[in-house]
Amino acid sequence: MKSIAEAYKDFPILNQTHNGHRLVYLDSGATTQIPQAVMDALETHLKKHNGNPHRGAHILAVEASEAYESTRDTVQRFINAKQREEIVFTRNTTESLNLIAFSYGMNHVKKGDKIVITIAEHHANLVTWQRVAERTGATLEYMYLNETGHLLPGEMDKIDATTKIVAFAHVSNVLGMEFPVDELIRRAHEVGAVVVLDGAQSTPHKKIDVQALDCDFFVFSGHKMCASQGIGVMYGKRHLLEDMPPFLLGGDMIEYVQEQSTTYNEVPYKFEAGTPNAHGAVMLKAAIEYLESYGMDEIQAYEHELVEYLLPKMTAIPHIHLLGSADPAEKHGVVAFTVDDVHPHDVATIMDSYGVCVRSGHHCAQPLGAYYKVPASSRLSMYIYTRKEDLDAFLEALKKVRPTMGFKD
Amino acid sequence: MKSIAEAYKDFPILNQTHNGHRLVYLDSGATTQIPQAVMDALETHLKKHNGNPHRGAHILAVEASEAYESTRDTVQRFINAKQREEIVFTRNTTESLNLIAFSYGMNHVKKGDKIVITIAEHHANLVTWQRVAERTGATLEYMYLNETGHLLPGEMDKIDATTKIVAFAHVSNVLGMEFPVDELIRRAHEVGAVVVLDGAQSTPHKKIDVQALDCDFFVFSGHKMCASQGIGVMYGKRHLLEDMPPFLLGGDMIEYVQEQSTTYNEVPYKFEAGTPNAHGAVMLKAAIEYLESYGMDEIQAYEHELVEYLLPKMTAIPHIHLLGSADPAEKHGVVAFTVDDVHPHDVATIMDSYGVCVRSGHHCAQPLGAYYKVPASSRLSMYIYTRKEDLDAFLEALKKVRPTMGFKD
Repeated sequence: MKSIAEAYKDFPILNQTHNGHRLVYLDSGATTQIPQAVMDALETHLKKHNGNPHRGAHILAVEASEAYESTRDTVQRFINAKQREEIVFTRNTTESLNLIAFSYGMNHVKKGDKIVITIAEHHANLVTWQRVAERTGATLEYMYLNETGHLLPGEMDKIDATTKIVAFAHVSNVLGMEFPVDELIRRAHEVGAVVVLDGAQSTPHKKIDVQALDCDFFVFSGHKMCASQGIGVMYGKRHLLEDMPPFLLGGDMIEYVQEQSTTYNEVPYKFEAGTPNAHGAVMLKAAIEYLESYGMDEIQAYEHELVEYLLPKMTAIPHIHLLGSADPAEKHGVVAFTVDDVHPHDVATIMDSYGVCVRSGHHCAQPLGAYYKVPASSRLSMYIYTRKEDLDAFLEALKKVRPTMGFKD
Repeated sequence: MKSIAEAYKDFPILNQTHNGHRLVYLDSGATTQIPQAVMDALETHLKKHNGNPHRGAHILAVEASEAYESTRDTVQRFINAKQREEIVFTRNTTESLNLIAFSYGMNHVKKGDKIVITIAEHHANLVTWQRVAERTGATLEYMYLNETGHLLPGEMDKIDATTKIVAFAHVSNVLGMEFPVDELIRRAHEVGAVVVLDGAQSTPHKKIDVQALDCDFFVFSGHKMCASQGIGVMYGKRHLLEDMPPFLLGGDMIEYVQEQSTTYNEVPYKFEAGTPNAHGAVMLKAAIEYLESYGMDEIQAYEHELVEYLLPKMTAIPHIHLLGSADPAEKHGVVAFTVDDVHPHDVATIMDSYGVCVRSGHHCAQPLGAYYKVPASSRLSMYIYTRKEDLDAFLEALKKVRPTMGFKD
């Protein structure tokens, strides 16, 4: 097994300076960087095997099909799905959630039913359910959190007999915390609801086992795990997928098209309209193999070590406030924070002047910001290529934020 | 200006043998090959500028935004759209057509209205309208063709006062022909219908001017014009886009999200949910610049020369039948054909044994196949890297198809 502490060397983009400082990339929760091995996989595909999957008998069509379908096998194994047909390729987590909302939600939720989500959801797992509720007459109900990001007592009781869908993030992209996923899924299934688990922030960082989780749907994006933008995954239990109408319509997802009627292809193809993104699939497969060359458990342990290193130092700095828990045991490598009297955009801009890339804004979770009365914040998020030196640079830059704004702390 | 006859040297994938023969790729209508310059553009982006567009104040987010948005400017110029806000990035032509069908179609078509398309449409521009018709109670009406692929007399009269949408391919992916696009658009506008023009097979091969065409929507894919799979474009006139609700929901496309309601971003962003595919955009921009380095008019003239060279030789071979016109003046570089008594899949497989890649099947146009009673055919389709030597190899292989199957012609 290679040493994760050396993984940063696999990422050419990190070998540069910005504003006279070593570039420190701490925005992996938004999009991750691409290792050379993944770029090489795409280049080899484009130089040897590029064609249109599923669309021909010639060698390049066959090779492109194999590349695309072997990624399906790889993803199946990676998240331990029971069947390869349960893996549907989409553009990203957002499209996966839209597919579920429109194809499953619109057809299985009716007036009087309830959809239960948490107040910490990403807009993609929230606005989608708003629309399902609005169109079907169902109610969208939120489970609220205490100040440290934990579900308030009794909130899970909102999952009741009228609940048809429970949707939540496996790891919050703001709080960096996991909800009690096992209990939420158990409770949802007790009342016959299906669970939509947003794995955008968990899949890149820990071993996923959808069968052990027993979630009904699971979604994630390639670009948050060293693959390209433009490829994502929707996992769904086979019997649910079988029962869902197609979402996008076009080539590949059809069986027979007549002038006034159409029958559809089998799962998973009935959900994959148009030319498949084999280029993205090639990169996703290479990314999974790259991550597995270090080991998912090892990646999780490595990031946990970084979090344990960071949090005490970070909370020791005056005027810094974390969103959610500050306990390293509860935190993945996503740390949103505020600096007293400094707007998060200024925080990010000042840190950028020291070569440190952090995100600022509402992190696509405005209802959480409104609930906590923190409409915007800054966010550090790490990955396999993050080093203690990066966190040191971050901490140094953070200490300079208020002085730069003229505060004499 | 570089010589197009040498363009094939820009494509590393073509420099290989298959089954002991030089690889001849004639399936560009499905997906095109990628020149080194486009691969290099992606690699530079990934090694220097990769980040999440629109999502941060740090250098890599800013550079990714610039890369993504500058592609929008490039596309605007490339198809001569009036405003950059009229360019919406999608996954591909299929998603673009779904967006139009669901967002415009579902909201502007009602019971008693008519949607008029041709019998030659690709499933993506056909099944979508089937669903709009089915959901809204509108009628889906077809304009039929004669044996050489021309609209039958009077078919355009189907565009009448009840017609709300007229949708058709700029160039048919089976017939390789253009419909009378100017007259169809004029007639549609006379009755107040909007025109959806499927440019998947035209944009790569000729200069597009959406303002001169005066189509209301125009769609195309990156992967059919030397860019990557997973990026496409929907052009729409601004006033139509302004009036359309969002299709996919999630991050980036929102303005304010509250627990029970959401307001949306401006065009074009309200149609671009989730992390934008900046990687695909970088490749699309590089592809456009690559094509323009030869010139779109020059590309069209070059392909026309190839068609003029090919068709007489092809039709001189016994037992070969073209779909649609055999007149080079009417044909783009897409030639679907049948060989008497040989299944198209066998045709493609035999040709593959000589290193020649052609497609076989229904070409995602089953209603056209049913109408012509030719449910499947083989198809040659060319591009900038196609050479006369490729066509010679194709013709040689084609002559061997029937003998290989045991026919003594």
